[in-house]
Amino acid sequence: MNLEPALAELSHRLGARFSRVPAALAQYGQSETHVTGGLPDAVVFPQSTAEVAMIARLCAANGVPMVGWGAGTSLEGHALALKGGVMVDFSQMNQMLAVYPEDMLCVVQPGITREALNDALRATGLFFPVDPGANATLGGMAATRASGTTAVKYGTMRDNVLGLEVVLADGRTIRTGTSAPKSSAGYDLTALFVGSEGTLGLTTELTLRLHGQPEAVSAAVCAFPSIADAVDCVIATIQSGIPMARIEFLDQASVEACNAWAGTSLTVEPQLMVEFHGSPAGVQEQTERFAEIAAEMGCTGYDWAKATEDRNKLWRMRHNAYPAILALRPGATALVTDVCVPISRLAEAVEETRADIAESPIMGPILGHVGDGNFHAILLVDKDDPAEMAVARRLSNRMVERALHLGGTITGEHGIGCGKLGYMAAEHGAAWDVMGQIKRALDPANLMNPGKMVRQK
Amino acid sequence: MNLEPALAELSHRLGARFSRVPAALAQYGQSETHVTGGLPDAVVFPQSTAEVAMIARLCAANGVPMVGWGAGTSLEGHALALKGGVMVDFSQMNQMLAVYPEDMLCVVQPGITREALNDALRATGLFFPVDPGANATLGGMAATRASGTTAVKYGTMRDNVLGLEVVLADGRTIRTGTSAPKSSAGYDLTALFVGSEGTLGLTTELTLRLHGQPEAVSAAVCAFPSIADAVDCVIATIQSGIPMARIEFLDQASVEACNAWAGTSLTVEPQLMVEFHGSPAGVQEQTERFAEIAAEMGCTGYDWAKATEDRNKLWRMRHNAYPAILALRPGATALVTDVCVPISRLAEAVEETRADIAESPIMGPILGHVGDGNFHAILLVDKDDPAEMAVARRLSNRMVERALHLGGTITGEHGIGCGKLGYMAAEHGAAWDVMGQIKRALDPANLMNPGKMVRQK
Repeated sequence: MNLEPALAELSHRLGARFSRVPAALAQYGQSETHVTGGLPDAVVFPQSTAEVAMIARLCAANGVPMVGWGAGTSLEGHALALKGGVMVDFSQMNQMLAVYPEDMLCVVQPGITREALNDALRATGLFFPVDPGANATLGGMAATRASGTTAVKYGTMRDNVLGLEVVLADGRTIRTGTSAPKSSAGYDLTALFVGSEGTLGLTTELTLRLHGQPEAVSAAVCAFPSIADAVDCVIATIQSGIPMARIEFLDQASVEACNAWAGTSLTVEPQLMVEFHGSPAGVQEQTERFAEIAAEMGCTGYDWAKATEDRNKLWRMRHNAYPAILALRPGATALVTDVCVPISRLAEAVEETRADIAESPIMGPILGHVGDGNFHAILLVDKDDPAEMAVARRLSNRMVERALHLGGTITGEHGIGCGKLGYMAAEHGAAWDVMGQIKRALDPANLMNPGKMVRQK
Repeated sequence: MNLEPALAELSHRLGARFSRVPAALAQYGQSETHVTGGLPDAVVFPQSTAEVAMIARLCAANGVPMVGWGAGTSLEGHALALKGGVMVDFSQMNQMLAVYPEDMLCVVQPGITREALNDALRATGLFFPVDPGANATLGGMAATRASGTTAVKYGTMRDNVLGLEVVLADGRTIRTGTSAPKSSAGYDLTALFVGSEGTLGLTTELTLRLHGQPEAVSAAVCAFPSIADAVDCVIATIQSGIPMARIEFLDQASVEACNAWAGTSLTVEPQLMVEFHGSPAGVQEQTERFAEIAAEMGCTGYDWAKATEDRNKLWRMRHNAYPAILALRPGATALVTDVCVPISRLAEAVEETRADIAESPIMGPILGHVGDGNFHAILLVDKDDPAEMAVARRLSNRMVERALHLGGTITGEHGIGCGKLGYMAAEHGAAWDVMGQIKRALDPANLMNPGKMVRQK
């Protein structure tokens, strides 16, 4: 690595939008969870694709690693600069560039956040549905193939990114996709870059699919005597073809945490939180049919949130589940694991995980996007206590291994980052080597977010 | 290429499931359209993944090209063996291997056809929605990223293939995806192989998403005074959030052809054919709201197909549009071009194409899946008349260039094959080189369907 000349040139070209002051770099060594490690040698704040391409060419010429940074909300340390180099902070590329209401598309820069995007869209009657909870940037959401509460209806980032502009490791800028709704013209590079966690290039522009704001919305919370009953209700609802917009699961411990944090008084039993979008009559019908199914599946309490303010309160509570759970143990850090399994195996996956956690000395509420077979355990740990960390890691590993055993995946939406690299071989076998071949083809010097995603030498 | 030893060994190992008899090879040199060229040196009929891997290893060791063959229904000559080699005909790998109703998934071999698959699924209450018209194989549909009439609601092959088993150019077998509904574990290899037209590997197994058979279905045909009115009706319907299952456009010439072929008596005006899926009340509501929108947009005739037999007649007519149009000019061959544009540009794309064709001496009805911005021109030509072929090619080229100019793609669903390779650079620019880098990384000797998809030396 020929670091100093590269940094000197970047400093010269970017002026105040370049820094190597330790205080400015420190934040990039942290993550939302227990994962830490690696500091960049410098941070840059590009304002255009041309600047990103210039940065990439300079870094490439000098063998300097490049890592993209959005809002820093990822849960597996995706954006930690494990090999140093230049952190490319996209906070000054945060604009909506264009919106095409007739085509239900918009074009954004990668640094725009989910909430800012939806604020900017409000007047159009359209919205961008992918909602991972955190106010992440769209560039980061694409990089991790984020999803969240609404994926059961609207899909994940895989389904809602129509095209990208990407600066490659050698400084070339490419465009993937078009503004047409579909295409069969060539390899699906958009899908390849979405979820590649910054290891193949730096995203500088995204074309996103938008959706019409639903005419009517209704939501409900319902309690079940057991996890299996709640999950059976989800399966029956999906099979009956009722198009849920959200269907979220909270276990008893999550319900307790949410009650304490939000001042709510949900029954401390496994709960489903559902939402329906559609026409007034459609939503009414969906809601009634869901209530029937829930009753058949043994629902012990059904609470209705028709008014907007009640609904907002409900989803605010759900979105705050993470801080609510962290507050169960003041000073604790979270080791968050997310897996995804076929829906038919969800009840056993959740129940066995819950039994594992119950037998351990660690608190670990479980919650998730059960319409997708996706759930999370939030293990509350003292990250400076090696024994406790070892227990938490063992719990997390068992959960991941169980997901694989049940035909699922090691992560439904959080991604690989630093936390799951050790399981890539187990999930993908020889296909992991294919990922490595693709990485080497596009980034032979391993400069884009090195240390992640592919087998490390 | 070390052809003879490879063929001798294949013949030895596969016995009657190997042939190099010219009569047996001739069919592989034909396509559904004007595209022809290239014959394989031999054809093999594997019965298992292990056999496909054996074939690939033998071909790789001897530098022999491999091309997969499904039902031969592709429209751009995708499966023509341009460089000779071994045709891998999947007709003896045509089984449904497993169905998981609770997870709404099934696992199939690549040689199963769309109709056979849906017959096998009938008792489950589930169906596989992607419907390109032709009774293609699922392996071929994945290879070309097929879509068709129902993509507007259920998505294309991109959205409905959850995982693949693929034999690579060097004989390695990999699995992509899992049975979980979503994943963020690594590069999306499933999406990379879907649409790669056999240039990266041979698909030996597919995990497919299934959908519940709709409780209620209704369909309608409505005539409009102009193409622009029909397209405006589509845009307004999409924006109003009405979830159409199908919305098809036929221009006057297509309507005439269908009437003549099927004995129907549709008004000879631009027509939309729509279908709604859902609950009885939902379908009722959607239908009424659509009828209102159609009336506002100047619909001049509205015909209702509530009864199953009327609906079947309608879609049989639509599915037979291709032979119906071919019959307009006995003995003619079709030069079929498909493009896809942003929906807001659809009316001008269709109208300008129609004007181009009208000024030419060639007959060329236009029809398409307008909910996706996707339409086809079926140019009827005497393929032995060079002057006429030149005119048809010029029309097709103008249509493709117009699609690019309007922000669209050179093919919405037919793929690249032999017909569209010349436009890859125009659509993708530097991203086409990235496709080439990926191809070379996975198939350095260029043995998988050579002559297709990437820049040819």
